[in-house]
Amino acid sequence: MVIVMGPGATREHIDNLVDLVAAAGGEAYVTRGVSRTIIGLVGDVRQFETLDLRAMPGVSDVLRISVPYKLVSSENQPTRSEVSVAGVPIGGDHMTVVAGPCAVETPEQTLAAAQMAKAAGAALLRGGAYKPRTSPYAFQGLGETGLKILSDVRTETGLPIVTEVVDAADVDLVAGYADMLQIGTRNMQNFALLQAAGEAGRPVLLKRGMNATIEEWLMAAEYIAQRGNLDIVLCERGIRTFEKATRNTLDISAVPVAQSLSHLPVIVDPSHSGGKRELVLPLSRAAIAAGADGVIVDVHPTPETALCDGPQALVGGDIAELARVAETLPPLLGRTLTAAPQPAGV
Amino acid sequence: MVIVMGPGATREHIDNLVDLVAAAGGEAYVTRGVSRTIIGLVGDVRQFETLDLRAMPGVSDVLRISVPYKLVSSENQPTRSEVSVAGVPIGGDHMTVVAGPCAVETPEQTLAAAQMAKAAGAALLRGGAYKPRTSPYAFQGLGETGLKILSDVRTETGLPIVTEVVDAADVDLVAGYADMLQIGTRNMQNFALLQAAGEAGRPVLLKRGMNATIEEWLMAAEYIAQRGNLDIVLCERGIRTFEKATRNTLDISAVPVAQSLSHLPVIVDPSHSGGKRELVLPLSRAAIAAGADGVIVDVHPTPETALCDGPQALVGGDIAELARVAETLPPLLGRTLTAAPQPAGV
Amino acid sequence: MVIVMGPGATREHIDNLVDLVAAAGGEAYVTRGVSRTIIGLVGDVRQFETLDLRAMPGVSDVLRISVPYKLVSSENQPTRSEVSVAGVPIGGDHMTVVAGPCAVETPEQTLAAAQMAKAAGAALLRGGAYKPRTSPYAFQGLGETGLKILSDVRTETGLPIVTEVVDAADVDLVAGYADMLQIGTRNMQNFALLQAAGEAGRPVLLKRGMNATIEEWLMAAEYIAQRGNLDIVLCERGIRTFEKATRNTLDISAVPVAQSLSHLPVIVDPSHSGGKRELVLPLSRAAIAAGADGVIVDVHPTPETALCDGPQALVGGDIAELARVAETLPPLLGRTLTAAPQPAGV
Amino acid sequence: MVIVMGPGATREHIDNLVDLVAAAGGEAYVTRGVSRTIIGLVGDVRQFETLDLRAMPGVSDVLRISVPYKLVSSENQPTRSEVSVAGVPIGGDHMTVVAGPCAVETPEQTLAAAQMAKAAGAALLRGGAYKPRTSPYAFQGLGETGLKILSDVRTETGLPIVTEVVDAADVDLVAGYADMLQIGTRNMQNFALLQAAGEAGRPVLLKRGMNATIEEWLMAAEYIAQRGNLDIVLCERGIRTFEKATRNTLDISAVPVAQSLSHLPVIVDPSHSGGKRELVLPLSRAAIAAGADGVIVDVHPTPETALCDGPQALVGGDIAELARVAETLPPLLGRTLTAAPQPAGV
Repeated sequence: MVIVMGPGATREHIDNLVDLVAAAGGEAYVTRGVSRTIIGLVGDVRQFETLDLRAMPGVSDVLRISVPYKLVSSENQPTRSEVSVAGVPIGGDHMTVVAGPCAVETPEQTLAAAQMAKAAGAALLRGGAYKPRTSPYAFQGLGETGLKILSDVRTETGLPIVTEVVDAADVDLVAGYADMLQIGTRNMQNFALLQAAGEAGRPVLLKRGMNATIEEWLMAAEYIAQRGNLDIVLCERGIRTFEKATRNTLDISAVPVAQSLSHLPVIVDPSHSGGKRELVLPLSRAAIAAGADGVIVDVHPTPETALCDGPQALVGGDIAELARVAETLPPLLGRTLTAAPQPAGV
Repeated sequence: MVIVMGPGATREHIDNLVDLVAAAGGEAYVTRGVSRTIIGLVGDVRQFETLDLRAMPGVSDVLRISVPYKLVSSENQPTRSEVSVAGVPIGGDHMTVVAGPCAVETPEQTLAAAQMAKAAGAALLRGGAYKPRTSPYAFQGLGETGLKILSDVRTETGLPIVTEVVDAADVDLVAGYADMLQIGTRNMQNFALLQAAGEAGRPVLLKRGMNATIEEWLMAAEYIAQRGNLDIVLCERGIRTFEKATRNTLDISAVPVAQSLSHLPVIVDPSHSGGKRELVLPLSRAAIAAGADGVIVDVHPTPETALCDGPQALVGGDIAELARVAETLPPLLGRTLTAAPQPAGV
Repeated sequence: MVIVMGPGATREHIDNLVDLVAAAGGEAYVTRGVSRTIIGLVGDVRQFETLDLRAMPGVSDVLRISVPYKLVSSENQPTRSEVSVAGVPIGGDHMTVVAGPCAVETPEQTLAAAQMAKAAGAALLRGGAYKPRTSPYAFQGLGETGLKILSDVRTETGLPIVTEVVDAADVDLVAGYADMLQIGTRNMQNFALLQAAGEAGRPVLLKRGMNATIEEWLMAAEYIAQRGNLDIVLCERGIRTFEKATRNTLDISAVPVAQSLSHLPVIVDPSHSGGKRELVLPLSRAAIAAGADGVIVDVHPTPETALCDGPQALVGGDIAELARVAETLPPLLGRTLTAAPQPAGV
Repeated sequence: MVIVMGPGATREHIDNLVDLVAAAGGEAYVTRGVSRTIIGLVGDVRQFETLDLRAMPGVSDVLRISVPYKLVSSENQPTRSEVSVAGVPIGGDHMTVVAGPCAVETPEQTLAAAQMAKAAGAALLRGGAYKPRTSPYAFQGLGETGLKILSDVRTETGLPIVTEVVDAADVDLVAGYADMLQIGTRNMQNFALLQAAGEAGRPVLLKRGMNATIEEWLMAAEYIAQRGNLDIVLCERGIRTFEKATRNTLDISAVPVAQSLSHLPVIVDPSHSGGKRELVLPLSRAAIAAGADGVIVDVHPTPETALCDGPQALVGGDIAELARVAETLPPLLGRTLTAAPQPAGV
């Protein structure tokens, strides 16, 4: 950390700070410049977190130099993590496709979507039973009934399940069915939920908040990691900007940046960021080419009757093209597409 | 609603839509233009919410014309609401100051801050016992111990309490102590929490999400209202933009805009938006002058040792000036400052 | 400046930097921390601007501590500037209203608007003869014909003229008619125009770019100041954010922030930021209460036929209210409304 | 266009609008809903641009349905354009690399950078002689001396030149040397410059404003096209958002969106958007995979002494990898890398 003193800082202000830092177990080095004095702090940054240095008399600014997260940091673990979801790997040399319907509606729709997912190259099935919706008048999901449908479709197809949980009180119930818990963009800073997910014994897919910086996203992952769970996959899904031609702006740079700051795998959701079917394939290609560890894509057998986000679901014609892309693009980056597991008894 | 057809839409596409709308109980009026056809929909907009019109063949865009919320809308209730917090009014011809420490730390600090709040013109005491923090290594609040401190300070000063709740599971506990529940910016779309707050029998202070549009904010209020609680006060606290000179950008226009779209009172938090002590007074004046129904301000007896947000807490010298502003500015807009209640037995 | 070295920086990397800084005439102080080394630089920040420190081996980050502008900085001139526009003051203890039509259309419309401006409390007349428009199919202004109309209206009413210039090649022509040159939001970084305006011998009203940080805005002012012209008034007019309920988001905090960083006066344009008539009065009140040195407001005798921005122009009923606000609010902040000059011969 | 009337609109308000539209040569179709009346307008949207419909009594909103640009629209020309820069194609089945130094500094540096550009797969040389810089104290470019250096390097290497022009007054001079004029992000709405570039007889590379919507970008292209020049290539270079881990946020979705709205080729600048060397390759791969018609990349022989943007310039080791990506990725999308022309006499 570096403390920047204001033009009017006195010798007493500076001495006070040096003492305060020393009392907290750190060391302070003072550099007097032409117009400003700066104080460099040496020690563990977390020991200075409880000091409100910015509020001390004479202080103009406090600059943080180390990252504020630890367990998920690439400084803490230089090798990249590989997360296993019921045996299906995400990370490492793998490129993994997750696909399925935005919301679970019926057994037939879910099974048909799961078969589309497989045809598209997916090794994991996504599907929402609990849906956080902006409007209280919109479809809110089937709840446990939806989880049972997903479980039946898993038996039928062999695809492990990724599904969202929206409240800390539901984590145990959802973890009883799911192979991976998804935390959605609106809940990225629901800290009670993050902590409960950290204790649930399931890998977690953590979507980036649409308003969250990459640093805040990694801090949210740190909440999960702190509870003993490092099986976390980050998912970039678009951020909110002034541009309205797309639902959100896919921050493609977040893939290499997060992979450099953290050892966790990073996948991309091209369906929710663009919000339009015709953008899903170009953005999927871009994500894989940027080096993402996977993509998570909406598919639906009959999007025009979908209860949620139909306009962005891939349909028949696009499925084969996604499979072709998922097969041919990763080898250019030294990766291979993760194969779908078979159903038991096959 | 208006459906805009794409350039390639066929007669059959249009007929399908007209039939679909009719089946949903609405009426569709078709206007054929030079390059586009548009279809105007007549009926209750919520009956069309379940149709995924955007996914229908031939459709280029769907434009919503009515607002998607109802209970909190000024179309539903043209007169402005006045919310009572244990007898202290917010809204109507009142201008109400809420003040207190960002976080409850000790009985002494909380009492001292409450006395500062009173001196600043406040009629309600704010203070956090549960703190949602970006970093898991930062102070997370005292929990129920903090609520008890607040309750003791209420007895001593007579000021009703506004305090934050961060998880649906805690709502009943917090409501047992608080006169008003606060829902913070990171939880504005924590729908389980909104619904629990809607059933807790206490007025709710709903902060705007730092990434939320005004419409989404009103939709969040609608979640609370739907559970039977219309005692909601909206609080603008700054939005996230590219500008980094301030912590967030106070959206001062949100005050008149939200007051025009909704009948709910709207107050402003100048402390968290600016993030700097020297901005609190100018932004408080701006908020009152823009027509806000109140302001909510951080005060702290010794900000340099505060465990949370010390740099933005008002200190001694500014307190009298805030009181002067709160007294003299509202009359120019036909309002009067809400007086603080007395402690029982005084 | 502070150089932050990466975890892998070697002793040689550090020595190289120390030598480079010394060669540029500065001094470097090295602080070795647990995981990082930082180097504090002492000297004039501009002497380090030509070094690309960030590109040097071993460097992780470079933090600037001083502000990058000088002439317009409050560090350079601690007293606040007062700018005179043909005798009408902006800044100091004055609160100055500028008003007029967005675009000059006809002599009659301009004169009528000028009379409305006076009735609203304005001491300066604004009006555009050159209009930068997003669409090449929209009205682009009358050019020199418009300047002549403004000049005639000045003679008739006594109000000095503020008018926009959009190309460096037009500066001399416009300065021949105008009392103050306006540089619009889209041209805030048109550096050729800034430099030409700096040499034109007229005070300049510099609107903030809708995408510009406050620092970039002050850097743009520095371009003008460098050419010998310090008669600059800054104008906050809203920034671009995700919120679409208003045309732009008025950054009200920019008023106290820019006034603290710079000695230049700061005024506010509530018409263009909100884009709606009903927001002009609340935002004008907020601006004056926040401490702005003035407001600049659109008025139009018949907004429904205006060729530009009619929906935001104040009309009859609002004029008296603006005059009342401009008269009664400034005294609460120790300011007085600037009186309009009289026409010659009156 | 669709006019949405407010809840209080009267029959007279509606009749007035119908008459106004008819007088402008259009037709108006009225649909009366439960709570609102909407009026559909049929005719050329540009005939309604001069009417200020939003300012008419009773009007709540005006929704535009057609795009406001015409010459650059894909509705106007369904086949995709191919632009020739001194014989080098951009667009169609080609994927074209443009590379070179951010700023021209010396003949040696420029030649060395041009050779790096060729080695990286480039068919066009970029290099700035006129640099728009945020700070007046930063290097502003060599001007005509720089153009002469570029011209000499073109003779030596055979690579046609792309170079920036920053002021309308310089267009003829720059066009005398350049094969393609570049208009930078800060000048995207410098309308005088756009118009001058439209008349200069050279293809134009139009960078997106860092704050511009895709629609505004296409409107800026329309300004050029209106002057008779349709040889325009669009360049996405990142937009300004709240995320600070990268200099700007590359809006990768803008590639397919702009290609769908317009027939113009779209290329991507991964160097300026990310601002960091290590992001250039991942973002280049993402751009090509998303379907961009090209990439424009900074290279520099000695970035640590570069006078401009050294930290983002590719260096030796990355050059071969960019060439490999530019060669192997496009065929997966049915494209081929554009070959560099040979110098005359070779």
